[in-house]
Amino acid sequence: MFTAEDHLHMSRALQLAALGMRTTSPNPRVGCVIVNRGRIVGEGWHVAAGTPHAEPHALAQAGELARGATAYVTLEPCSHHGRTPPCADALVGAGLARVVVASTDPNPLVAGQGMARLRAAGILAESGLMEAEALALNRGFMSRMTRGRPWVTVKLGMSLDGKTALDDGRSQWITGPAARRDVMRLRAESCAILTGSGTVMADDPQLTVRGIDPLQPPADCMSPAAALMREQPLRRPLRAVVDSRLATSPVRAIYLNGGVRLYTCVSEGARHAPYIGHGNLVRVVPAPNGRVDLSAIVADLGLQGCNNLLVEAGMGLAGAVLRAGLLDELVCYVAPAIIGHQALGAFNLPPLASLEDKVRLAWHDVRPVGDDLRLTLRPVR
Amino acid sequence: MFTAEDHLHMSRALQLAALGMRTTSPNPRVGCVIVNRGRIVGEGWHVAAGTPHAEPHALAQAGELARGATAYVTLEPCSHHGRTPPCADALVGAGLARVVVASTDPNPLVAGQGMARLRAAGILAESGLMEAEALALNRGFMSRMTRGRPWVTVKLGMSLDGKTALDDGRSQWITGPAARRDVMRLRAESCAILTGSGTVMADDPQLTVRGIDPLQPPADCMSPAAALMREQPLRRPLRAVVDSRLATSPVRAIYLNGGVRLYTCVSEGARHAPYIGHGNLVRVVPAPNGRVDLSAIVADLGLQGCNNLLVEAGMGLAGAVLRAGLLDELVCYVAPAIIGHQALGAFNLPPLASLEDKVRLAWHDVRPVGDDLRLTLRPVR
Repeated sequence: MFTAEDHLHMSRALQLAALGMRTTSPNPRVGCVIVNRGRIVGEGWHVAAGTPHAEPHALAQAGELARGATAYVTLEPCSHHGRTPPCADALVGAGLARVVVASTDPNPLVAGQGMARLRAAGILAESGLMEAEALALNRGFMSRMTRGRPWVTVKLGMSLDGKTALDDGRSQWITGPAARRDVMRLRAESCAILTGSGTVMADDPQLTVRGIDPLQPPADCMSPAAALMREQPLRRPLRAVVDSRLATSPVRAIYLNGGVRLYTCVSEGARHAPYIGHGNLVRVVPAPNGRVDLSAIVADLGLQGCNNLLVEAGMGLAGAVLRAGLLDELVCYVAPAIIGHQALGAFNLPPLASLEDKVRLAWHDVRPVGDDLRLTLRPVR
Repeated sequence: MFTAEDHLHMSRALQLAALGMRTTSPNPRVGCVIVNRGRIVGEGWHVAAGTPHAEPHALAQAGELARGATAYVTLEPCSHHGRTPPCADALVGAGLARVVVASTDPNPLVAGQGMARLRAAGILAESGLMEAEALALNRGFMSRMTRGRPWVTVKLGMSLDGKTALDDGRSQWITGPAARRDVMRLRAESCAILTGSGTVMADDPQLTVRGIDPLQPPADCMSPAAALMREQPLRRPLRAVVDSRLATSPVRAIYLNGGVRLYTCVSEGARHAPYIGHGNLVRVVPAPNGRVDLSAIVADLGLQGCNNLLVEAGMGLAGAVLRAGLLDELVCYVAPAIIGHQALGAFNLPPLASLEDKVRLAWHDVRPVGDDLRLTLRPVR
């Protein structure tokens, strides 16, 4: 049984964890609060891979006050030696009396062993407090750990009548500046951004994160994580292109500075060279039915440590993601405008035999973003 | 200057006026509250054409207590002899001291003369209190009086990707039962429902109001309007079809019971006969550019006393209404489903040269209706 005070402190730990929204990848977002006799004596969160986890930051701030105290951690403390020593051992060493965890860690290197190690040391270790919130915060990490692939978000900007581009592919701009800023936020929270050849040719996008910063800790925060975070650069999401026939020109903006992961069905190395020349990687993927195997692509991105994949594409790739059953969340920015039937739609799908066959989704969130409306939906599984 | 008490009573008068939402057409919706020394002594609203206006109902309930009292009326009292004597005279005769009006009446038979008549009798007559709300309640009547045509609402049921029907025209059902009930409410609040030949052939709709009743007054309401209303049948909206080439079969459901106003460009009487035989009316309208003149149709409906026109149509007629600049409000029921690019869209429009040419609307209301989302928008003029 958790008390109201427990909820209060775990809620704070979740807020701290969310500060890592744009920087922790491929690691999960984790927050920690240490409470001694009702008073918060230490706070921490994970800032970026290769830097300390949430618990050491909080323990450092708490010092001797950690002895006999309760730690609230949003994810099960790690029990393995990675780039940092195990957090479960650090909590034991600091003399904590009780550890409350929001969600256990599905990472096979942890998976309950963190809790077991705490209990073996005589610590009262409980889990499941505000678990849904903690899982939502790390839906990408959880997806990669349990399904071996990232959480897949498809982003669309469209008119009220479902048009995403003129018939020649032009789509700049259907939605307004606030929606475009919100997309930059989505990108900053993603580990990778995937687009298709049609978008690369029609819009020549860079798919970089612009005009957005890492989240900033509260000014009065005394945690060593705060100092670390103020120096932290924004993580640049991996950029990926699906171009099954290598139809995109290798001098499009996205390729020029390198770093793009280009997925294709074309296996001749000579045709890869112009893309590789700019510092991009080419990966050949199977095309079982003459269509590129998107499952192989998301699995590969999972292997690269990608927790959250943002798909920004036209009707071709968006329809293919839907058909492949890979969609986890759809984010539609709907402009209050009408474009007409001759423009391009949102999803390329085979014709339905009956309206019963429509793809069913469920509303997750509806809210205004500037002059546009942002609709977030998830598949009904 | 109006007081908080004035607002309170006018707000009640507006609530009473709204009870006529489904029955007053072609008359406006009007409510009246009579207040004597802070106490409501009479209430009334207009129930249906040919029955008393709001003021006589309220005066009848107030009796002698109307003397020296204040009347709150949502629309300027009439000054002309119609099917009932002038309400301005009735208020004068009852000895009211003050009359507060929400909006003046643009009807050329009234247009300020009601106010003038009250003032000439020494009554303190003021107007403009909660005028926006009163105008919204009678936007259809105001439109007909000032523009000679009804307020035009286009209703659409569509998937998230803007599809209103499969490629063969089937559209039953994209949206859910709650949205369909809400459409019945829209129909009941409309004076006429207009559809196109495509919808008549693909869906064979009846466009009748089903499963909906006139609004009911509060159980404790002592106004004679309440008794009248409990006996009032639902007004049946006029049904109208645009079929420029008379392509619809005269034995479709909508024609069989007669009463339909059929607009066409075909002038040969022999081709009208099968429709007229079932008791429908055929009206020949001009086609200046080879397209039926929708302005002529809405003007004709205005002449028939139509305040509120509901357009329930496919992409052809919906696009034509938009192109003709006749749209006043768009009501979209959006289902959380995806149908794909091969299905039919919402608006048939010529291709745009640039995204700058998109038709711009503004959000008026966004809310869930059952499992669907109802989006209400108005053109940016």
